[in-house]
Amino acid sequence: MSVITIERKVLEKNDQIADRNRRVFAERGIFALNLVSSPGSGKTSILEKTFQGLRGEMKTAVIEGDVQTDLDAQRVTQYGVPVVQIVTLGGCHLEANLVQDALAKLDLTGIELLFIENVGNLVCPSNYDLGEAMKVVVLSTTEGDDKPLKYPAMIRNSRILLINKIDLIPYVSCDLNALRNNALQVNPDLKIFEISCVTGEGISDWCDWLRKKDCSEQ
Amino acid sequence: MSVITIERKVLEKNDQIADRNRRVFAERGIFALNLVSSPGSGKTSILEKTFQGLRGEMKTAVIEGDVQTDLDAQRVTQYGVPVVQIVTLGGCHLEANLVQDALAKLDLTGIELLFIENVGNLVCPSNYDLGEAMKVVVLSTTEGDDKPLKYPAMIRNSRILLINKIDLIPYVSCDLNALRNNALQVNPDLKIFEISCVTGEGISDWCDWLRKKDCSEQ
Repeated sequence: MSVITIERKVLEKNDQIADRNRRVFAERGIFALNLVSSPGSGKTSILEKTFQGLRGEMKTAVIEGDVQTDLDAQRVTQYGVPVVQIVTLGGCHLEANLVQDALAKLDLTGIELLFIENVGNLVCPSNYDLGEAMKVVVLSTTEGDDKPLKYPAMIRNSRILLINKIDLIPYVSCDLNALRNNALQVNPDLKIFEISCVTGEGISDWCDWLRKKDCSEQ
Repeated sequence: MSVITIERKVLEKNDQIADRNRRVFAERGIFALNLVSSPGSGKTSILEKTFQGLRGEMKTAVIEGDVQTDLDAQRVTQYGVPVVQIVTLGGCHLEANLVQDALAKLDLTGIELLFIENVGNLVCPSNYDLGEAMKVVVLSTTEGDDKPLKYPAMIRNSRILLINKIDLIPYVSCDLNALRNNALQVNPDLKIFEISCVTGEGISDWCDWLRKKDCSEQ
């Protein structure tokens, strides 16, 4: 039995569980977003700013995925948002069964919005459906404008791109137009928000989109 | 046959080929470094600054690993350094057999220093020995000071840490002392250089270390 056959079976099994998660979200009217990026692109900071921006208007929960530590969960929990930490112990991405287990630990009553913060990895999580409505990929300006071309699978498999750290544009070698164009070249359907968790720029647009987004649009 | 058994066999096979690569490096007196980091931490910029800093004093070659595109190889080749591009077509890390194939395409005569720039991924490449003398991990200040704790395997398996983008310290939320201490907590034997590819700070120390480094020290 080849490694590829094993991998296909792992993915098939994953997709079955992802479908079950998706049914749970649909039944409860939960809008689930799978937040993916490189390490340090600012996923957790974006969650913090999002909670501030939404001011409790939408009942939200978080599943935190990390290779090690619960540092991110500690940050998120300060906002009074229920959070379950998944530690993958070296695993490079979340899989649907881990999310299924995490869901069992959350009180989902009334939850409208669920963020699944994936492991910081711009490659592996792109292959794994967790049952989410869509993947939201974060790229920070400090990573450079060529990243959509170099890591196309994640861009192709996402519906939203958050370009983060736009406050650093004056100090880094990143052409925002080139970054945008490179992303749209890989995925013309991508919806792009440009944000800064330092100045707060763009956060209200992103929160407005979250407010308007309901499951019928998925 | 379980996935774990398959994975162990893949790693065993990888290690055998890595040993063969290591013998090639030893026979030819090549100091091979496996450069690992998140996407956009500045691995390619560091190579460019290193070539400038070494001013042709050491005959150098590069193996570029990327998920997609040869953008990095194009940048490196401008410095007159022989380079072979490996495109993994979605693969999240380099393996020893890919490096073995790349070595067959390089004229190794007189080469003293070989940089293997791995795929941008702070998780998966940590498990794969390519036959290198050591892994050199790059963390940029923009990624935050908690990354050594959150991605400990890569820090533990590296001998050198390059803290890059120190010119951005005034603009980002990164405590350099905390970053250093977190890294040393995971791996007390780590040698740390603090560098900037924009101001050039720290590059001469790094190049001095490369000049002095010979295979007897490995």
